Amino acid sequence: MSDRRLVVIGGDAAGMSAASQVRRSHPNREIIAFERGYHTSYAACGMPYYIAGQIPTSEKLIARKPEVFREKYSIDARIRHEVTSINTTQKHVTVTNLETGDEFNEWYDDLLIATGATPIRPNLPGIESTGVFGLSTLQTGIKVYDFIAENAPNTAVVVGGGYIGIEMAEALVERGIQVTLIDMAPQVMTTMDEDRAELIVPAMRDAGVTVMLEEALEAIIADKNGRVNAVQTNNRSIEADLVILGIGVKPNTELARNAGIEIGEHGGISVNSKLETSVRNIWAAGDCASSLHRITGEQVSIALGTIANKHGVVAGTNISGGNLAFPGVLGTAITKFNELEIARTGVSEREAEKLGMQVRSARIESRTKSGYYPGSGPITVKLVADVVSGRLIGGQIIGSPGSGKRIDTIAMAIMAEMSAFDLAYADLSYAPPFSPVWDPVQTAARQLLK
Amino acid sequence: MSDRRLVVIGGDAAGMSAASQVRRSHPNREIIAFERGYHTSYAACGMPYYIAGQIPTSEKLIARKPEVFREKYSIDARIRHEVTSINTTQKHVTVTNLETGDEFNEWYDDLLIATGATPIRPNLPGIESTGVFGLSTLQTGIKVYDFIAENAPNTAVVVGGGYIGIEMAEALVERGIQVTLIDMAPQVMTTMDEDRAELIVPAMRDAGVTVMLEEALEAIIADKNGRVNAVQTNNRSIEADLVILGIGVKPNTELARNAGIEIGEHGGISVNSKLETSVRNIWAAGDCASSLHRITGEQVSIALGTIANKHGVVAGTNISGGNLAFPGVLGTAITKFNELEIARTGVSEREAEKLGMQVRSARIESRTKSGYYPGSGPITVKLVADVVSGRLIGGQIIGSPGSGKRIDTIAMAIMAEMSAFDLAYADLSYAPPFSPVWDPVQTAARQLLK
Repeated sequence: MSDRRLVVIGGDAAGMSAASQVRRSHPNREIIAFERGYHTSYAACGMPYYIAGQIPTSEKLIARKPEVFREKYSIDARIRHEVTSINTTQKHVTVTNLETGDEFNEWYDDLLIATGATPIRPNLPGIESTGVFGLSTLQTGIKVYDFIAENAPNTAVVVGGGYIGIEMAEALVERGIQVTLIDMAPQVMTTMDEDRAELIVPAMRDAGVTVMLEEALEAIIADKNGRVNAVQTNNRSIEADLVILGIGVKPNTELARNAGIEIGEHGGISVNSKLETSVRNIWAAGDCASSLHRITGEQVSIALGTIANKHGVVAGTNISGGNLAFPGVLGTAITKFNELEIARTGVSEREAEKLGMQVRSARIESRTKSGYYPGSGPITVKLVADVVSGRLIGGQIIGSPGSGKRIDTIAMAIMAEMSAFDLAYADLSYAPPFSPVWDPVQTAARQLLK
Repeated sequence: MSDRRLVVIGGDAAGMSAASQVRRSHPNREIIAFERGYHTSYAACGMPYYIAGQIPTSEKLIARKPEVFREKYSIDARIRHEVTSINTTQKHVTVTNLETGDEFNEWYDDLLIATGATPIRPNLPGIESTGVFGLSTLQTGIKVYDFIAENAPNTAVVVGGGYIGIEMAEALVERGIQVTLIDMAPQVMTTMDEDRAELIVPAMRDAGVTVMLEEALEAIIADKNGRVNAVQTNNRSIEADLVILGIGVKPNTELARNAGIEIGEHGGISVNSKLETSVRNIWAAGDCASSLHRITGEQVSIALGTIANKHGVVAGTNISGGNLAFPGVLGTAITKFNELEIARTGVSEREAEKLGMQVRSARIESRTKSGYYPGSGPITVKLVADVVSGRLIGGQIIGSPGSGKRIDTIAMAIMAEMSAFDLAYADLSYAPPFSPVWDPVQTAARQLLK
């Protein structure tokens, strides 16, 4: 096996985790990774905080540079190299060196597709104007940072109230910019129930963000130099020197699709739990690939660094000849707006009802620490259970510092197919500086038992 | 059933939770609770922080006063009433009113013993000197607070490096007192492995606490007024205007024992999962009762408010005619010394080896947030797994703010009988302000898989 050759398409979390994993088991195997961008292994999730000015340089977001992969791991990582097609019968990829324009083929024994995802850029008038950004690669984050530094925008419109939108609203307020966040939905954070999402908006408004719901982007208005100066919605025109698109991402599957590799209903490359695609010796991992949702049973695409890293290790282990099954996802996510922590896992009540499940839910308010302990703050927990099986299927938390990470306790309960009783009486930690005597997630579980 | 009469012995967490639970299901049942102390339903765990001056009044530690139980719940809660014996054949208790000296009998249909635990006070010369305190009831906490206020001690010796000792050392330093903490063991926090406990001592020393290990208390030295002024150990004499005993507690089981109720090997009143004692219609809950340890299979007594509350609800539900089984404990515990958070669950490596288990362990260092995110701090996680079953059986965390509560994720994995793989690939939350891309508990689980 030592002479098998691995080619990786995409030099970020999933691709480079997999490559490193293969290297650990096979010191002599040839590994080549092509990245069309400028950077490898960076923390895309850190971009809002870099743009906010909270991280001194963009370099801090880079975990490992191509040189490090080459010198320390003997992984031939090549940036500015775009794979333009996959030939699955001859087992080679066609690559363009974006610096020189040279085109060449590289053969593979194993191929990993880790092409990531791209922010959705709706085809609207003016969308290509200067000052309109989506956030995907580190390069895009640097561009936003530089744009702010060079143009000192007074006003910004953030399109979309998901976690990117919320984080970017925080970041731009931090930079002294007047921010309007618009969402076409009647709520922000549509992965949460409306009764939870409505707890987020007041914190944003308190920080000076204008939040407009049921407000759909229709056009970008640019000046004569092609620079954005307003956005047009279904209701009005809003002044904007800067526009951030935070309306979701789509998996980059074109390469795979063109090579005849199966794409799933949700838009990601179809993979089994070993992360094998429909074509033998071709694997997919990260934002471009699908994952089994453990509650809905559906294949979903989740663009999150933590999933990409897990995918990478699982794919890398299997490419190495191991046998690891990715257990699937719950859609666990966490974010914050300033001091307000926001987290969710599993399915929301609305999602469960859409799936035709008969659900019961409970909502409680509690404190992050014992009520009498200094610094104790409010926390709300919502739990959703499936009435038929009795199992917990979802949780949502919104609250003051110390609230959000409690979602992991709920996620573990759901991973373990536990009931509300199991969670309520689990032996969780308690001391006044950390929790009320019943942890808030347990108070919610007890409420559900009533 | 509406005319059954419940008598509760002990007016704190377990007893009053049970009483309230019974009241909810049976609005007309007669419920009498006897408490020999001055307070009902108080947060004993908050005493160190009250003594530290961080909680304005001791009243804040009281969840519900006897008047509230009487008026709002129709529970006849009587403080300063000591039950002196239980007659299990005639089904009555003998009670002394400690204010008047009156003695009387009260009959019961159901009896709940929730007598709590008492700090161990070794029978050593001078142990009854003024200024030597254990912490148990709220009253004892108030006494320590008042003693400090009245005597302004310069020096204190804390005996025992468990969580009470660590919390009291923090509290007394906060009050400007020169603190020496002694422990006869070669480490603090003997419920953790030595390699973890040794991470705690530097933080205590940095705060000015003198920590002396393998230092056994032999006597208390008092002045001619009977007031402590030093402690004598196996090695030396240490100046002390105040001594805190934090060398553990023992369940208050004398009443039960004298009534012929079975006591377990570990010293707590034996109960089944429904919290029934060996005598029909007599229940026990809280610090005085035993719990099944889910890893060791042994009956253990754990004096923690969160267990007492859970016991109370389970006992109350069963007394009400319901059917709830307490699932047992893992010995999950959390504390802190200033900014250093300390938590454990399950069994330590040493405990597992003592039980004859073949174990594997992993220790990792990580960060509480993404390394590049402001405020990210160090965290260490240790995991212990049973080689035979592959199951996780223990975890220990020490680290900066945000570390400790992650023990709950590990506790859930152990409750669910998960393996290191299950934990490593569970869908936990990630965003830079909350976690590295692999949560530290997952990094530890991956280390264990290697």
